[in-house]
Amino acid sequence: MMKTSIFLTFLAMSSWAIAQDTFMALPDKAPVPKNNPMTKEKIELGKILFFDPRISESGTISCNSCHNVMAGGDDARATSIGHGGQKGKRSAPTVWNSAFLTVQFWDGRSPDLEDQARGPITNPIEMGMKSHDVALERIRQIPGYKKYFEAAFPKDKSPMNIQNAVNAIAAYERTLITPGSKFDQYMKGNKKAMNAQEIRGMKTVETVGCTACHFGPNFSGPLPPEKEGNYQKFPQNPNPEIVKKYNLSEDLGRYEVTKKEEDKNVYRVPTWRNVALTAPYFHNGSVKTLEEAVRVMGKLQLDVDLTSNQVEDIVAFLNTLTGPFPAQTMPRLPELRGRTLVED
Amino acid sequence: MMKTSIFLTFLAMSSWAIAQDTFMALPDKAPVPKNNPMTKEKIELGKILFFDPRISESGTISCNSCHNVMAGGDDARATSIGHGGQKGKRSAPTVWNSAFLTVQFWDGRSPDLEDQARGPITNPIEMGMKSHDVALERIRQIPGYKKYFEAAFPKDKSPMNIQNAVNAIAAYERTLITPGSKFDQYMKGNKKAMNAQEIRGMKTVETVGCTACHFGPNFSGPLPPEKEGNYQKFPQNPNPEIVKKYNLSEDLGRYEVTKKEEDKNVYRVPTWRNVALTAPYFHNGSVKTLEEAVRVMGKLQLDVDLTSNQVEDIVAFLNTLTGPFPAQTMPRLPELRGRTLVED
Repeated sequence: MMKTSIFLTFLAMSSWAIAQDTFMALPDKAPVPKNNPMTKEKIELGKILFFDPRISESGTISCNSCHNVMAGGDDARATSIGHGGQKGKRSAPTVWNSAFLTVQFWDGRSPDLEDQARGPITNPIEMGMKSHDVALERIRQIPGYKKYFEAAFPKDKSPMNIQNAVNAIAAYERTLITPGSKFDQYMKGNKKAMNAQEIRGMKTVETVGCTACHFGPNFSGPLPPEKEGNYQKFPQNPNPEIVKKYNLSEDLGRYEVTKKEEDKNVYRVPTWRNVALTAPYFHNGSVKTLEEAVRVMGKLQLDVDLTSNQVEDIVAFLNTLTGPFPAQTMPRLPELRGRTLVED
Repeated sequence: MMKTSIFLTFLAMSSWAIAQDTFMALPDKAPVPKNNPMTKEKIELGKILFFDPRISESGTISCNSCHNVMAGGDDARATSIGHGGQKGKRSAPTVWNSAFLTVQFWDGRSPDLEDQARGPITNPIEMGMKSHDVALERIRQIPGYKKYFEAAFPKDKSPMNIQNAVNAIAAYERTLITPGSKFDQYMKGNKKAMNAQEIRGMKTVETVGCTACHFGPNFSGPLPPEKEGNYQKFPQNPNPEIVKKYNLSEDLGRYEVTKKEEDKNVYRVPTWRNVALTAPYFHNGSVKTLEEAVRVMGKLQLDVDLTSNQVEDIVAFLNTLTGPFPAQTMPRLPELRGRTLVED
């Protein structure tokens, strides 16, 4: 695809034709795995679990604490604050449109949302539960949960188990998608949806080469059911000054999972969707503004010194990828009737 | 009113007649102070502010963190976890129906919801902002807030100020009321809304004397516009064993505000509304179950050893005070476009 679009650029086709070939609107629905179909009841349970802080050891941290769906789907911090005030070393990725990723976490260590949802619950510096059994015991002690699990998994004899819990959370997360951004409107034929600067920025990300990695409807590579992660080394061109300034060599990325030499400093390519909402940037949240993130990526990945105008145009374009959030009602968490669940 | 109702009890009137005289359904609307009328726009701004963790120093603690309106309006913990993992000494009171209290906080140190909302923002162990000016500067840096303040306070030339922020939060909180509980349905004439045990429990709280303090539609005393706090000494009859077990003498309550001898261990009478959702109990969250809370209150306040049957009946009655939550849409927090607000 990239070759074709560069060719078209050289032919000086209209920006519209270029966009149609290289860029794609976000689908209106997320890809759904066959073994976890979405139902209204499953989504409802998943939403409740997503918002329930009682699944954390202290009773204060829910999925939404670090992946806030009232905002950018993250926590707007460099690194999150988890159990006992501990901080991780990587920045919380946005949950928005995570359904369009082929692998989860910065290092791709999870193959899907179902598997991903298991991680934070028992991560000692995140939600801090001692085990999934302990987490499930918490859920079981809340009388109101039973009916939600039964409704979501009507064929199961004892539906309250961790697999069903993460399946429900994943089903809910597949509703957390944001088609309908200015960019999507443009792609669907409304040429007035993007202004001249935004269109210039769109052309720039392609001609400069950003879209070699950030491609596809989610600007993160192929979509599921493709299973391969879209991984890239970062930084590609390790300018020592910038690497030091933003502390970009310490974290070994995917190497920490695979222990393969070629995976050192390798990361899953993150989405550009709603990127304007998720400062600070990069795996360690070291860069505070979108302009600087664009400048640094140009230098470290493409060895290009972007001009100020180019940076401004690209940022204008990236802002067109902020999408509308689906309307959501506030869940009512199942009741604990006169009982204390969390020990102080 | 109490005298009348005891008189009626002696006359052995029907439970319905007793209930009509002593107990009252929760009004469908909260009392609204003249200087802060509720408007749709003000409520909307207040909701957004209530859910916005960016108003805390770390960017992780919102009003809703400790007063969770998806649950009991509190955090289901003995004491909350605030800035830097610090814990306070008092249990977060529920925000549900707090609009029906004449004074706010356990010690009544705030005269209304507007004043109350100022407190946690700058409390160093709660949201931890250095000052209201710093908090406001945060809000000002989020471009999307301006239009909400302008819509909520259309007559103000520069509406983004702390008084308007807390006025909006209070206006939102006045929507957080729960009329329509089984008890309310019963009071409005649906005699099937409460079962025999629940009605027995209702009679018991009156004959035993609980309603001497827990009276009125909110079971917390007079409603606004009354301005006097409904204060009571706790414990009244300091049984040494129980006081020690639950550490009930250490906190001096309202004395810490007034320094008056008669205010030692004096507290605002809390609501019974949704009390089944707000374990653990008492100002220090030391009692883990509603049964035990009822038993201890009987002993310490009324010098009565309640029987197990009485306790069960009273708890059954208290459960009828769990109300429906008003339907709420999830707010979308105003956007920070490519900027970092919270320093790590």
